Amino acid sequence: MKQPDIYERSLELHAKLRGKIAVRSLVEVKDKTALSEAYTPGVAEPCRKIAADPSAAYLYTRKWNTVAVVSDGSAVLGLGNIGGLAGLPVMEGKSLLFKEFADIDSIPIVLSGQDEDDIVKAVEMIAPSFGGINLEDISAPKCFAVEKRLKEKLDIPVFHDDQHGTAIVVVAALMNALKLCAKDLAKVRIVICGAGSAGIAICKLLLESGAQNIIMSDKNGLVAEGEAWLTSAQAEIAKRTNRSKLRGTLKDAVNGADVFIGVSAPRQLTPEMVKTMAEKSVVFAMANPEPEIYPDQALEAGAFIVGTGRSDFPNQINNVLAFPGVFRGALDVRARDISEGMKVAAAKALAELVGKDLTRENIIPSAFDPRVAPAVAAAVAEQAKKEGLSRI
Amino acid sequence: MKQPDIYERSLELHAKLRGKIAVRSLVEVKDKTALSEAYTPGVAEPCRKIAADPSAAYLYTRKWNTVAVVSDGSAVLGLGNIGGLAGLPVMEGKSLLFKEFADIDSIPIVLSGQDEDDIVKAVEMIAPSFGGINLEDISAPKCFAVEKRLKEKLDIPVFHDDQHGTAIVVVAALMNALKLCAKDLAKVRIVICGAGSAGIAICKLLLESGAQNIIMSDKNGLVAEGEAWLTSAQAEIAKRTNRSKLRGTLKDAVNGADVFIGVSAPRQLTPEMVKTMAEKSVVFAMANPEPEIYPDQALEAGAFIVGTGRSDFPNQINNVLAFPGVFRGALDVRARDISEGMKVAAAKALAELVGKDLTRENIIPSAFDPRVAPAVAAAVAEQAKKEGLSRI
Repeated sequence: MKQPDIYERSLELHAKLRGKIAVRSLVEVKDKTALSEAYTPGVAEPCRKIAADPSAAYLYTRKWNTVAVVSDGSAVLGLGNIGGLAGLPVMEGKSLLFKEFADIDSIPIVLSGQDEDDIVKAVEMIAPSFGGINLEDISAPKCFAVEKRLKEKLDIPVFHDDQHGTAIVVVAALMNALKLCAKDLAKVRIVICGAGSAGIAICKLLLESGAQNIIMSDKNGLVAEGEAWLTSAQAEIAKRTNRSKLRGTLKDAVNGADVFIGVSAPRQLTPEMVKTMAEKSVVFAMANPEPEIYPDQALEAGAFIVGTGRSDFPNQINNVLAFPGVFRGALDVRARDISEGMKVAAAKALAELVGKDLTRENIIPSAFDPRVAPAVAAAVAEQAKKEGLSRI
Repeated sequence: MKQPDIYERSLELHAKLRGKIAVRSLVEVKDKTALSEAYTPGVAEPCRKIAADPSAAYLYTRKWNTVAVVSDGSAVLGLGNIGGLAGLPVMEGKSLLFKEFADIDSIPIVLSGQDEDDIVKAVEMIAPSFGGINLEDISAPKCFAVEKRLKEKLDIPVFHDDQHGTAIVVVAALMNALKLCAKDLAKVRIVICGAGSAGIAICKLLLESGAQNIIMSDKNGLVAEGEAWLTSAQAEIAKRTNRSKLRGTLKDAVNGADVFIGVSAPRQLTPEMVKTMAEKSVVFAMANPEPEIYPDQALEAGAFIVGTGRSDFPNQINNVLAFPGVFRGALDVRARDISEGMKVAAAKALAELVGKDLTRENIIPSAFDPRVAPAVAAAVAEQAKKEGLSRI
């Protein structure tokens, strides 16, 4: 599925720009007065205010609007472990999207090391400059521990977009899909193919949203309590999924399922497997660039609603729908954290935006719908206040 | 010497702006094509190029123009150890000046910890994002070790502005002052009052520039080989200064000296002491905001040329004359390091800019002279090439 054109055009763009974001000065420094107000000696005064009350940093510096995009480059796109430096174009791209979609000042920070302790220490050390931390393209299972430890240590939001951004958009899309199917999230059987970081985050957010019957599948087989091959993250999720302890292959899990969610690899779901699903089945095949099954095949085999991660098919599950608004909302209320409740609120707001335009080919807003980030931000900010995670 | 007006005005400015720099997007992302070129899937191509050849990061990302301003807030202005967060207005100010004076994209990074090992580790971890590291407001003697270790570890320039920026401007000013005195740098006796990080850096750069007779003075007395109270940095410099092993007080050192350089505290130099200096003496009294001696007093006592750190007297020794051009030059040639030779080249270029306008009240260019940064940059870049520290 090589796409030479897009790669060549992208390389040309990058060579022309030499960076997708830059720093902008907000003060013209053309005389001694400007220099003495923006820098020494005047700058001592905001410093004194912050020394006396650290929350004043939100008033006198850009901390209120600044998010670090941090990666060790251990799991970049489909490229794998290419290291922090080689991942920099992706992180700059992420920072660009933060600015373009939510007017957030975001700084790409790529790391020279990949050790869990080193990553945690580095982010902890640089955190005071930022109002939030977006972790990106860090491999599993390290990403779970890095995120958990940083959430405990820091008083600003920490969010691993590969996990939670994807999860929010999947939950939003599924909420709308089930409306069209006239099915209840609490009752449907859901199969998640791919029990890595994205799959597990999707599973957790679905459980938080009310789903009760989920089976996860990995390359070793179905995730079931007691299996010897489970990672610690899988073992934890096994306690809350697949309660009938079904063993076997993906094929066995899909048989009779209402929903298939793929975050795995190309061609995992065959038309024959789709034929065994329940009536009005939902298939989200999000492997990139080649999905677990192509939409035309899935529909022909009887799927009722199909989504992918791609922009050239209907129902694109794209996490640019989530992260800009999520951080906008969190920053707006100086949130201490991004909770599961805030993620569910984001998913609901995203689903509701589709409104009366809801059809089988339009279950989720377009990434370019200008209402998206403000609506998500408002829902996230409100939920933060409800949960006491807001600081204003 | 409280200046209520400037502090109030500065606080107002900071409250209005809520940050002196912001991020600017260089790509408009308004449709799927733009998204696929600036982000996935297209962005995989520059990633692959950098994975294959790390130097390609200078071609496809903003690394070529980006400098981190890093501080642990342990020695901020005259405020002392107020911590990283409270120092953020200063670091944002520095980033603002980098942008305004040299069009460099600079990111303020304030640290949550002040341990030497932690600082070195954090900077090493985040270094791949940057083309250079400017250390700022880190206390002595920690700043020496942090800088030394980072220079060894990193393949990008590391520069502690409090040391080297000040040193470059002092050396430039002294070069011009000595022209007016018709004295030779190799022969004059120089007293440096204040043997902290700035004083020691000034001393080293003067030695590098050809000075041979320097005595340093600290609150404990004159720095002389074998004194028990010397710090390790002072002990090292004692091997190259005060060869007659003069002991005593500042008064003893100043007696007969040609040059006084103060980076210490208010009122250290009395008119009586100036009267004992050699003919055509030079006094740089740079304690801020109150100098070691006020210019009118020094001149009345017989000093021939006087400079301070203040903008309201002639001959302002201001390090904004150095750091923007130094980094501009280093970035322009993708320098691996900023060497002593590059600093001397910067000082010479700065001194030469004054040209035929050289008078006792005009020994150094104005901070707002638009020729300054380009001239310093050109000299630094050329010297980097000469020394094999350039990568283009």
